[in-house]
Amino acid sequence: MMNISVCTTPAEITDDDIRNCIVVVIDVLRSSSTIIAALANGAREVIPVSTPAEAGELASRLDITGSLMGGEREGRQIEGFDLGNSPPQYAEDIVAGKTVFFSSSNGTPAILRVKNANRVIIGGFNNLSTVLEYLLQQRKEIIILCSGRSGRFSLEDFVCAGSMIAGLMGRLKGPDVSFNDAATAAAELYRRNMNLLVDVMRRSEHGKRLMEIGFGKDLSYCAQIDSHNVLPLYVEGKIRGLKQDAGALAETETATA
Amino acid sequence: MMNISVCTTPAEITDDDIRNCIVVVIDVLRSSSTIIAALANGAREVIPVSTPAEAGELASRLDITGSLMGGEREGRQIEGFDLGNSPPQYAEDIVAGKTVFFSSSNGTPAILRVKNANRVIIGGFNNLSTVLEYLLQQRKEIIILCSGRSGRFSLEDFVCAGSMIAGLMGRLKGPDVSFNDAATAAAELYRRNMNLLVDVMRRSEHGKRLMEIGFGKDLSYCAQIDSHNVLPLYVEGKIRGLKQDAGALAETETATA
Repeated sequence: MMNISVCTTPAEITDDDIRNCIVVVIDVLRSSSTIIAALANGAREVIPVSTPAEAGELASRLDITGSLMGGEREGRQIEGFDLGNSPPQYAEDIVAGKTVFFSSSNGTPAILRVKNANRVIIGGFNNLSTVLEYLLQQRKEIIILCSGRSGRFSLEDFVCAGSMIAGLMGRLKGPDVSFNDAATAAAELYRRNMNLLVDVMRRSEHGKRLMEIGFGKDLSYCAQIDSHNVLPLYVEGKIRGLKQDAGALAETETATA
Repeated sequence: MMNISVCTTPAEITDDDIRNCIVVVIDVLRSSSTIIAALANGAREVIPVSTPAEAGELASRLDITGSLMGGEREGRQIEGFDLGNSPPQYAEDIVAGKTVFFSSSNGTPAILRVKNANRVIIGGFNNLSTVLEYLLQQRKEIIILCSGRSGRFSLEDFVCAGSMIAGLMGRLKGPDVSFNDAATAAAELYRRNMNLLVDVMRRSEHGKRLMEIGFGKDLSYCAQIDSHNVLPLYVEGKIRGLKQDAGALAETETATA
């Protein structure tokens, strides 16, 4: 039996669940979209850290020349940091070749929560097809983890999880594949809203907050399906981007085996 | 601002959230449906308890003549108990006038989790309109709490929460009413499935399990909208049923003030 699950918040996950799984971490607004943008635009790696202080300590300890610090609290750039959590900030001329220490309110804790999973990848609408191709090649148990917002269900993460489930349902069928209840619900909600993704964002609690503080444009950025083809893979504390093609994936399999 | 929220599992709730709220606890399959049936059929009260042992201790300590013990583990009647967790078992000739000590896997812990809320009521499809009338009269903050299943999202609870939200959205409007993301999603899913509730149950993980162990008939029982007009209200450890009419409600307000 191949189990495919959506978890609506990190609280639904247990350590037993994740050991043999690929976990896809989603924080559409905006951590996963930002991480995807950074790696697609040539950042060497993104290192998720719990606290701003940890970003600073780690940056000086690892002595990486040309590192950047990025992230937010309550949606706004952390004081003293180079970048916030707005994907368009992570342009090629700013991030290419750089290590980015990254700390955000919901996405970063979700990634760190599942660090012991068999594989951890970062997904969003922006790299939907790339994530799907990877999942279909691996054929392991899959958990799609919605980061949520302060421990609560988040509409845009759930609909994005639904886009992945809808894609998997089309390709994985039969009595040996099972989807949990949250997966069933998320896929249905996605199918109903697939042509209204920006509207979904605008109706969401987090989307409303971002519009209030001047990041309304990020909503359409984060709703764009397949704007990037990078697969962010978290291995030993670092998220690195794989351009999705058969060769690159084969290489990773060897590197992380 | 009047906040109306759905929580997909008890883990989403904090004690601060509930203090000034009416919490509606939903466990469609089957605790809330069973409690509604018991009270509608004349049970004096239902006393939710964490463990089977606690049911026994409390029954002998309170020395209530004619009490019954009801509940399930893994869907099946607890050994030595009088009744399981199948609503049709709680017929009038069996429960009328009786106190029922009740212990179930998901619904009971959810009820006990929110015992410090301003009001705790038990809701399901079976008493949907009665719950809505009560909520509309009270005009307090509302949390619809899905019991979920082993800490995870449960489809039938979420769709039932959606039926309540859809009803509230039709009657409470304007800039001073706010619905959280889970409420938005649940209402949309309910509207899409309102004529397919038995099918929703059959597709759910819990519904499949109940069909496997011989309780398939309970699915259509639990999917029936407004089969009862009782409002189960949890006060000081006991759930008592109010027949929903203005007089009865006024009386409760006095009793619980």
